[in-house]
Amino acid sequence: MNPLSPLPLQYEFSRHATPRAEIDSGARLVIDSEDALSGQLRKPEDRRDKKAMPWSNPVNGPIVVRGAKPGDALAVHIESIEPLIGQCATYTGAPRMLTEWLGPDCPPGTRICPIRDGVIEWSDKVSIPYAPMLGCLGTAPDWGVPSTGPAGNHGGNLDLIEVCPGNTVYLPVFVPGGYLYLGDAHAAQGHGELSATALEMPARTTIRVDLIPGANLPSPRIESPTELMAVAVALPLERAIVESYAKLILWLEADYGWNRWESYDLLTQVGQISIGYYTTGAVAAKVAKKYILR
Amino acid sequence: MNPLSPLPLQYEFSRHATPRAEIDSGARLVIDSEDALSGQLRKPEDRRDKKAMPWSNPVNGPIVVRGAKPGDALAVHIESIEPLIGQCATYTGAPRMLTEWLGPDCPPGTRICPIRDGVIEWSDKVSIPYAPMLGCLGTAPDWGVPSTGPAGNHGGNLDLIEVCPGNTVYLPVFVPGGYLYLGDAHAAQGHGELSATALEMPARTTIRVDLIPGANLPSPRIESPTELMAVAVALPLERAIVESYAKLILWLEADYGWNRWESYDLLTQVGQISIGYYTTGAVAAKVAKKYILR
Amino acid sequence: MNPLSPLPLQYEFSRHATPRAEIDSGARLVIDSEDALSGQLRKPEDRRDKKAMPWSNPVNGPIVVRGAKPGDALAVHIESIEPLIGQCATYTGAPRMLTEWLGPDCPPGTRICPIRDGVIEWSDKVSIPYAPMLGCLGTAPDWGVPSTGPAGNHGGNLDLIEVCPGNTVYLPVFVPGGYLYLGDAHAAQGHGELSATALEMPARTTIRVDLIPGANLPSPRIESPTELMAVAVALPLERAIVESYAKLILWLEADYGWNRWESYDLLTQVGQISIGYYTTGAVAAKVAKKYILR
Amino acid sequence: MNPLSPLPLQYEFSRHATPRAEIDSGARLVIDSEDALSGQLRKPEDRRDKKAMPWSNPVNGPIVVRGAKPGDALAVHIESIEPLIGQCATYTGAPRMLTEWLGPDCPPGTRICPIRDGVIEWSDKVSIPYAPMLGCLGTAPDWGVPSTGPAGNHGGNLDLIEVCPGNTVYLPVFVPGGYLYLGDAHAAQGHGELSATALEMPARTTIRVDLIPGANLPSPRIESPTELMAVAVALPLERAIVESYAKLILWLEADYGWNRWESYDLLTQVGQISIGYYTTGAVAAKVAKKYILR
Repeated sequence: MNPLSPLPLQYEFSRHATPRAEIDSGARLVIDSEDALSGQLRKPEDRRDKKAMPWSNPVNGPIVVRGAKPGDALAVHIESIEPLIGQCATYTGAPRMLTEWLGPDCPPGTRICPIRDGVIEWSDKVSIPYAPMLGCLGTAPDWGVPSTGPAGNHGGNLDLIEVCPGNTVYLPVFVPGGYLYLGDAHAAQGHGELSATALEMPARTTIRVDLIPGANLPSPRIESPTELMAVAVALPLERAIVESYAKLILWLEADYGWNRWESYDLLTQVGQISIGYYTTGAVAAKVAKKYILR
Repeated sequence: MNPLSPLPLQYEFSRHATPRAEIDSGARLVIDSEDALSGQLRKPEDRRDKKAMPWSNPVNGPIVVRGAKPGDALAVHIESIEPLIGQCATYTGAPRMLTEWLGPDCPPGTRICPIRDGVIEWSDKVSIPYAPMLGCLGTAPDWGVPSTGPAGNHGGNLDLIEVCPGNTVYLPVFVPGGYLYLGDAHAAQGHGELSATALEMPARTTIRVDLIPGANLPSPRIESPTELMAVAVALPLERAIVESYAKLILWLEADYGWNRWESYDLLTQVGQISIGYYTTGAVAAKVAKKYILR
Repeated sequence: MNPLSPLPLQYEFSRHATPRAEIDSGARLVIDSEDALSGQLRKPEDRRDKKAMPWSNPVNGPIVVRGAKPGDALAVHIESIEPLIGQCATYTGAPRMLTEWLGPDCPPGTRICPIRDGVIEWSDKVSIPYAPMLGCLGTAPDWGVPSTGPAGNHGGNLDLIEVCPGNTVYLPVFVPGGYLYLGDAHAAQGHGELSATALEMPARTTIRVDLIPGANLPSPRIESPTELMAVAVALPLERAIVESYAKLILWLEADYGWNRWESYDLLTQVGQISIGYYTTGAVAAKVAKKYILR
Repeated sequence: MNPLSPLPLQYEFSRHATPRAEIDSGARLVIDSEDALSGQLRKPEDRRDKKAMPWSNPVNGPIVVRGAKPGDALAVHIESIEPLIGQCATYTGAPRMLTEWLGPDCPPGTRICPIRDGVIEWSDKVSIPYAPMLGCLGTAPDWGVPSTGPAGNHGGNLDLIEVCPGNTVYLPVFVPGGYLYLGDAHAAQGHGELSATALEMPARTTIRVDLIPGANLPSPRIESPTELMAVAVALPLERAIVESYAKLILWLEADYGWNRWESYDLLTQVGQISIGYYTTGAVAAKVAKKYILR
């Protein structure tokens, strides 16, 4: 299968863009994406040029799924995410809310990290396991066109480390065809994506997409081999935590036969929380399947 | 060593209370604590009686550490937390912020769970690994007397699952002697402690306490065999996340020779976040020691 | 001058829509707008039909200002806002965050209020002074297309009571021509717009628009005969308050010769805060001109 | 009547302190209080010395009201607040959350402002109307001893401009006698108290206190000649806004015969919000009596 070219770069989850591919439910796709910095940082001496490109997180798409209609869902099985140029890049972003603690004077460093044998060479002395994920994955809403900056019920710039190979992301369909986009691959990322710039890489992503008619998801869900996760996007983060747990509870009620108050109690004891980029409010509430599939 | 009796129950981190024990740096202590429900739920038919006891989370203490003075720190090594009566208890708490999603009508259930062979028997079909922790651990501030409800720079009701056997919690000393308290043991707890009531148990906790002169901690820190963690307490939670990461960065700068912007970048890629009871704003930012001790 | 027809209704601040009018700087325009409920509530027995129209706040536009280019600003002088059908409408919206306090069971009431002689007849016994304002006023961004739900640096669904006759709203220009939209007129509204549904009315709005080249506004500003106001949009609201005060301070520094720390001190003593719809995070920080124009 | 001496200064709302006065319901009291800076800034060359006094907002009290018992309320009628030394003081506080916008480098200025003829001479060119208020007013809780830093259901450091002469503040009683404290008088203050340091003054406050048996207030209320206000303390501020409006609605239901959903709708149109010191989360939701007393 020929990979989908990432060009021209796109920076919105738009229902108006010309489809790059049109697939049937069950199809496998290989999709190339530029990095979140639009490829501006390839060498240590490169600097971010926001005049040339003020926006971040170019995505590839839209991919139209034949027969998808509002109220359906797309199940995006992420099979693999591979680096396209054997390296990833980051730089020291503005400290924003950290300024109060660290001062404003962060130096303008660019860091280029080779990726070899499953390891990211972050520095001479520090290696980080290669743990790829997609920062951006989403469908096109029918009201408003989100840029690739925020996250929302359509997915978008979730920056959740669980959007990774081996997992399936379920996305609501708002417009006919679904209009799926992805990009902003990270070779690794911590909780909260503190500086807003993870280990960004151009990447080749292989997905398989199933259409699930009438799923009526309120917002994305993620399934790993061992966990169920509901995603919510809200600020402040305590609200996103509450909302993601509530959505997980309502999902367990609808699909797994759990009484809502029983799973409310269970999640109090065994639920886990994963935080995306902290200023966007994307949160995943998780539960291990072993507790649910009784 | 005789365990410290939990009676009479105390509900404040007070610098005014009569010391229960006075120890030297390095001493080991065995401390019994009543559960967070003041022992009101021992059988399934028991109900929470807030008229009889409106407060939660009785703690045992204060323990005075000889020679401790403002600006020092206490290193509390948690050696073990054992159930005192072979069971834990929880009940379906008011849904608070979840009411918007789940409705207000949660039934008043009490759940008593036996603890056997490292397993909590949550229901006929669901077992949860015994993973004990202390909800409350803290010293007495010099300005104000916190109840056992909130968390703060003194520790308090942190509800962080990392306050567990095998880990060391570092607490600031604000008054001569430190005035250490602990209690609110949980047999297990999820991130965010959704319903506010974990698997509460009367417990026997064994700690060893070292005095660290002149440590000048801004707020608690936690060290596990493999991780360093800085704790912050703030709302909204995005602020606590920023503050805990910032405190971790400043700690790495002061004690481990890391440039602040370099660890800012590193934590963006490998930092992890743990959330305590979501309405109190207690958060731990973590980093694996393998990245730091180079 | 012929009023601009509100039809077809538009629900986005889009740079792609076909202009409804093209004007020169200094021109006066009369613009009709449907109410926020798309006209679904005209009689007491009418009910909101979200199947027929799931979106809120239709706006009229875009209006293109000749010569406007990115970095310029539009000064929108609001001369008058008049009811088009002699009445306004509201209904009891879902209590959302209030559910925790009031329960979920609000009755589905529609309220139609005549507007006569500067008074809104809210009920038999309660009259409210007619105090019209625009809930939505904004330009089209160059990255993303906001729906008429949120507010942002482009303006949008600000729901600030200061967007009213006699005041001038300054809006950033992001795309050539500016692409100005307005609508969502309210006959009156309280701080925070608690239920999300104010006294909504189809309205005739008269504005005069001046082009201000190179203004480089970070977000909207408002000027009344007696006050200067900077607008910020952020959640949580304490962040919006800080950001709006900071933007006011930087404005006073740039245009009025005030040292930033001096105005920081002054605003501590005399600054005022106005809150828009509480879930969108729109806030105006104000200062009386009498303190500034010394 | 002899004024109550402010010495020794107190920095907690403690139920343990020795009463300074014991009064009957209906009594009038004259109470002197030191300024929030503990009197450290009397001349322009004075600097804040946090080593000598790390705490802020000394209060005078406790005042015991004979017969007051838990569940009752104190109605504190504020008759007057007069400057004790003819001046007030402020200084440029750390910019905290504003650092991100203004940088960290605020100069350490002290400003001493004479108060004459109802006017505060803030600078050569700027005069501010004398609009006195109490930053701190509260009773002693039964669980925990709040410092004079935070606000809460007991009142405390509310920093609401409506705690002013002519208004009545209703406070819950938690312990026998009520244990009333007040202080932290401001000659004027803006919404949000941006720098945390208003125009602080030693003051003479005259109050009259009525005991209201069985009032069972959840948190403070304020009544002006023309308005009813419910106070809530929560972060983030949108939560405080919701909570204060909800408490106002439940008050109107309990005492004024308003259906809760009707006042929910009314407050959407005519409610007003006042913000205290923005980091404490104190908010007052207001409604004009003319709408309620029909």
